[in-house]
Amino acid sequence: MANFGSDNTSGVHPTIVESIVAASAGAAPAYGADDLTRSVESKLSALFECDVTVLLVGTGTAANCIGLATLCPSVGGIFTHAEAHIVNDESTAPELYTGGARQFTVGGDDAKPDLEELEQKIEVSGARGVHSVKPSVISISNLTELGARFSPDETAAYSELAKSRGMKLFMDGARFANAVAGSSDSPADLTWRAGVDALSFGATKNGAMAAEALVFFNPDEAMLAEFHRKRGGHLWSKHRYLAAQFDAYLEDDLWLDLARMSNVNMARLRDGILSSHNASILAGGDGNELFITFKEGVAESLLQRGHMFYAWPSLPNAYRLVTSFTTTAMEIDEFIDDLK
Amino acid sequence: MANFGSDNTSGVHPTIVESIVAASAGAAPAYGADDLTRSVESKLSALFECDVTVLLVGTGTAANCIGLATLCPSVGGIFTHAEAHIVNDESTAPELYTGGARQFTVGGDDAKPDLEELEQKIEVSGARGVHSVKPSVISISNLTELGARFSPDETAAYSELAKSRGMKLFMDGARFANAVAGSSDSPADLTWRAGVDALSFGATKNGAMAAEALVFFNPDEAMLAEFHRKRGGHLWSKHRYLAAQFDAYLEDDLWLDLARMSNVNMARLRDGILSSHNASILAGGDGNELFITFKEGVAESLLQRGHMFYAWPSLPNAYRLVTSFTTTAMEIDEFIDDLK
Amino acid sequence: MANFGSDNTSGVHPTIVESIVAASAGAAPAYGADDLTRSVESKLSALFECDVTVLLVGTGTAANCIGLATLCPSVGGIFTHAEAHIVNDESTAPELYTGGARQFTVGGDDAKPDLEELEQKIEVSGARGVHSVKPSVISISNLTELGARFSPDETAAYSELAKSRGMKLFMDGARFANAVAGSSDSPADLTWRAGVDALSFGATKNGAMAAEALVFFNPDEAMLAEFHRKRGGHLWSKHRYLAAQFDAYLEDDLWLDLARMSNVNMARLRDGILSSHNASILAGGDGNELFITFKEGVAESLLQRGHMFYAWPSLPNAYRLVTSFTTTAMEIDEFIDDLK
Amino acid sequence: MANFGSDNTSGVHPTIVESIVAASAGAAPAYGADDLTRSVESKLSALFECDVTVLLVGTGTAANCIGLATLCPSVGGIFTHAEAHIVNDESTAPELYTGGARQFTVGGDDAKPDLEELEQKIEVSGARGVHSVKPSVISISNLTELGARFSPDETAAYSELAKSRGMKLFMDGARFANAVAGSSDSPADLTWRAGVDALSFGATKNGAMAAEALVFFNPDEAMLAEFHRKRGGHLWSKHRYLAAQFDAYLEDDLWLDLARMSNVNMARLRDGILSSHNASILAGGDGNELFITFKEGVAESLLQRGHMFYAWPSLPNAYRLVTSFTTTAMEIDEFIDDLK
Repeated sequence: MANFGSDNTSGVHPTIVESIVAASAGAAPAYGADDLTRSVESKLSALFECDVTVLLVGTGTAANCIGLATLCPSVGGIFTHAEAHIVNDESTAPELYTGGARQFTVGGDDAKPDLEELEQKIEVSGARGVHSVKPSVISISNLTELGARFSPDETAAYSELAKSRGMKLFMDGARFANAVAGSSDSPADLTWRAGVDALSFGATKNGAMAAEALVFFNPDEAMLAEFHRKRGGHLWSKHRYLAAQFDAYLEDDLWLDLARMSNVNMARLRDGILSSHNASILAGGDGNELFITFKEGVAESLLQRGHMFYAWPSLPNAYRLVTSFTTTAMEIDEFIDDLK
Repeated sequence: MANFGSDNTSGVHPTIVESIVAASAGAAPAYGADDLTRSVESKLSALFECDVTVLLVGTGTAANCIGLATLCPSVGGIFTHAEAHIVNDESTAPELYTGGARQFTVGGDDAKPDLEELEQKIEVSGARGVHSVKPSVISISNLTELGARFSPDETAAYSELAKSRGMKLFMDGARFANAVAGSSDSPADLTWRAGVDALSFGATKNGAMAAEALVFFNPDEAMLAEFHRKRGGHLWSKHRYLAAQFDAYLEDDLWLDLARMSNVNMARLRDGILSSHNASILAGGDGNELFITFKEGVAESLLQRGHMFYAWPSLPNAYRLVTSFTTTAMEIDEFIDDLK
Repeated sequence: MANFGSDNTSGVHPTIVESIVAASAGAAPAYGADDLTRSVESKLSALFECDVTVLLVGTGTAANCIGLATLCPSVGGIFTHAEAHIVNDESTAPELYTGGARQFTVGGDDAKPDLEELEQKIEVSGARGVHSVKPSVISISNLTELGARFSPDETAAYSELAKSRGMKLFMDGARFANAVAGSSDSPADLTWRAGVDALSFGATKNGAMAAEALVFFNPDEAMLAEFHRKRGGHLWSKHRYLAAQFDAYLEDDLWLDLARMSNVNMARLRDGILSSHNASILAGGDGNELFITFKEGVAESLLQRGHMFYAWPSLPNAYRLVTSFTTTAMEIDEFIDDLK
Repeated sequence: MANFGSDNTSGVHPTIVESIVAASAGAAPAYGADDLTRSVESKLSALFECDVTVLLVGTGTAANCIGLATLCPSVGGIFTHAEAHIVNDESTAPELYTGGARQFTVGGDDAKPDLEELEQKIEVSGARGVHSVKPSVISISNLTELGARFSPDETAAYSELAKSRGMKLFMDGARFANAVAGSSDSPADLTWRAGVDALSFGATKNGAMAAEALVFFNPDEAMLAEFHRKRGGHLWSKHRYLAAQFDAYLEDDLWLDLARMSNVNMARLRDGILSSHNASILAGGDGNELFITFKEGVAESLLQRGHMFYAWPSLPNAYRLVTSFTTTAMEIDEFIDDLK
């Protein structure tokens, strides 16, 4: 029986568990003054080929919202896709952290914000001055919420729009590893070289326990971020345990290997679905998420057999399938067999 | 060389590490719908001899501030001791989570808020109506910030004052285990039976990695707390890893054993200091914290030999010594030898 | 030349000016402890046929947002029409005052929130628990933003939906006077008898200088409102000047007379437009607002002749015409002549 | 019988009433696009001998808190005197507008913040980094809350301290007119030439109805202020009525004449008190406020005779006497007679 419910239901990768265990030996300075944290910062600067400012936190919501709070004033507007995680899955966290900024949403295929609609919404909001909301941030997700990947050129188009209006570009990278794994472009190409100001670089969904890195490509913009982390209660006292996760995650490209595994699993699953007459693909597949629709009765039958996956309410008759590094070929094949 | 710097510099207790490792086997529902979380809730209800509502989070600041946000309206005032952690060590987190409530501080020996001064400050604030701030919460810490323990009767006195003004009583229990370990009273006696409305029950400083339990003794008051946790970004997706820490912490009284070890270490350290002419005790010693002053030059000499401890700025010429479950008798004796 | 631009461009009615002038005689207690304020409270309780709690403030945004802050927790959602003033014309004031609550919008003819869509959005938001937003308030405007009036039965339908979900019903009554003037129902029937919890009762657009009354029909719910007013900086020290405006406004039904004048002016204007082939009505007309579309070139020609009115961006090719108590029959006839 | 209770209990000066009445003639653009607003801006730029950015609002709390919100980030600290109005009389408005910044208070004679203590508090706060609060603004009041006036040199000392720490200097000028009236220095000397970044320039206590000007001496810093005003609900639709008050207030030095009258009245009152054995002066007298103590039984006797003044809780056995432009020599003499 296959579990395609969520990459949040997986356990922690053994190498990361080992790193956590190893970190327990002896005392270490608290609040990020430890050696492991320095190591993570070096590795991320090397990975992104530039000096980055890094804040490690335990959840994706924290990474996203501390990032947004740093880039967006309380009187500001954040423009993003209607499917975005920050819109639908983080309660009023963006409002809390920004001090009451507002999110504006647009449509767009594959949960990529439609550029024209985006520009128009920004225009409308900006035109009314203080009666409306000050356009401040464009936020995109890579992978998008519908499992699609942005190319550097696509990202640069958002950046150009943002820069032309004095706005910032934020990237929610909860599944950034899967985006990199599916791309021939470097992490630097996919982010700051394409104009991204800050990125939340996820690890939790890809083998870590509770660890996300908020990465600023311009240290000046990160000035207030550390205060936002602290006042959000996200500065761990035993910070080495966040660092231990990330240190192992970044060592020997573990992060990339795990994401590749997830993506390979997804490719196998997608091939199986393409060969079936009982399901068709609606979106996704660039990384480890696929959105499909079933012929009548098929979903129920699969669920009854014990396969696990969820309906996706924003697409008609859609279901989301997610693979992870723990997915096995056997699971996939069993699912495809039952599907046919 | 002894390390009395902080209980935040210790690693994680092996039993808790094992529980984290064990939790990695297989998939588990996300966001707290897992069995381990149920187990922790049962254990805490048993421990406190009543049905409690529990929210697990990764930091003490989160536990405190989600608790305060639940008990205190944005127009409210929180009355506490000037030494309190929520005043001095959590940046503007209380303001963020409460939506802009204000803290009022009083003095008092051993960082126990002076009752008379407390009553007077509440009186003054309440008397000016909307021009001032609505008195809403009294917050005490047990252990206090100066290492003292509250008896049930002392706590009940704060509770009576709070109830007489329609206010709530919050207890910051970052070192609650050390308070219980040093007391003949039960956790229930020290909290809800003495009128405490909500408690942050710490584990991180006492052997966990990053885990604190926010405990509500009245489920109605906890209604909004889960939203506050989510909007603070403190709801872990792989929630079982918070639960795994607490499950091991509560099993077979590990929490109490570790706190007793810390307290026993402190007793040995205190005895040593009492027998020395080079230092005298200023405060603390009920749990695992001691505040002392040295004869001139002694502190510098000890630090040069490699012993580790910090100056405590709010008391004159004071230093704080903290023991933990990792402190050894050898460390203590070496410190005392060097002191003499 | 006619000025149909806004009821905010009118001056203050002479009777209200006189009341302001009269209030200047002698000293009076500050902050609402004066006799005029008592008089306004009595008059509003009489008008609404029940004991109401009243907070006078200087702007509609303040009245709306203090009301919303009182009814909606910071983790809550406010459900309203996409055309609502609180959505489009008050910047991020609702977010500021509520501490970061979120607005959800639906469609619906005449800017009346579509009940079915409303129920569905509330359902979706509530179903995801803490990951989403706690449905807390339904907000309607009477007159609506497109100039339509709610009957008591229509309002009761929103109230029933709200009550069935544990939510509150707020009414933005910036043009409530025009709604009453156009209705055979009493203020009580249009509000609390139909389940409205709080109303912002406007005066500024209808002859006052800067005065709005936030009216609570349940005094318990108003408990925190006075703190919200003060912390918003909306408690006037010389409060008698807010009261003086409202006292005159309520005396001898001035408020209703002025609204009737506006509505009569609108009826004349509407009749003229109905008789013209150069314009057709899109929405409104229940009170003092009308939304129309012109044949090509007509709008430009009217504007060039010096008539004043604004395009309304949310309806296709639409313009808004607003009458007030200062509108003259001559203005209207001149406009209609030029239109034909 | 004398009324020395508050300068908030006076009515509005006839010239300002006339200006309000005159503003009612005809229509005018809403939201500050009117000619009167332009006139006020010009007059204030002339008065301060530099290009200022001006925001008119209806209350002092609004002016102060919009100013603070513009200068202080949500993670910031505001350092001021323990007697300051923003600390004691504006509820949690500073927290609301700044998004949760914190106020730190120091002592100092005459409610002038003690420079040394101020520096020390800033030092302590800054030294703890993210665990504490980012020092951001020094706020002084001129007149101070105890009725004292700052010289340009005194103000410059605060400015130097602020600048040396990357902080801003805010001046609460609710009684700035009284400070200028009692000084030989120009408004420019007392503010921006001495390093003040923003000033709330009061009119309400000195003859206006409800009007305060928030003045920025650096237009860049004012960029976000207009959004803060709007989101606070402080942008009047019929803005000309705020402007009308200020236009008359500034015309022909009315503001200065009224303040001089208040100050002259205070001088007469002070002389009377100095000549009495039944009262002695504790603080104030530079403007229109005096803080005195009476011999036993004297206060009660004066109050019984119908004189009006309030106890001042923060000084021992103290009472505050406030004069205004409406105070008469007869009142004063009657009071002094009764005192003797």
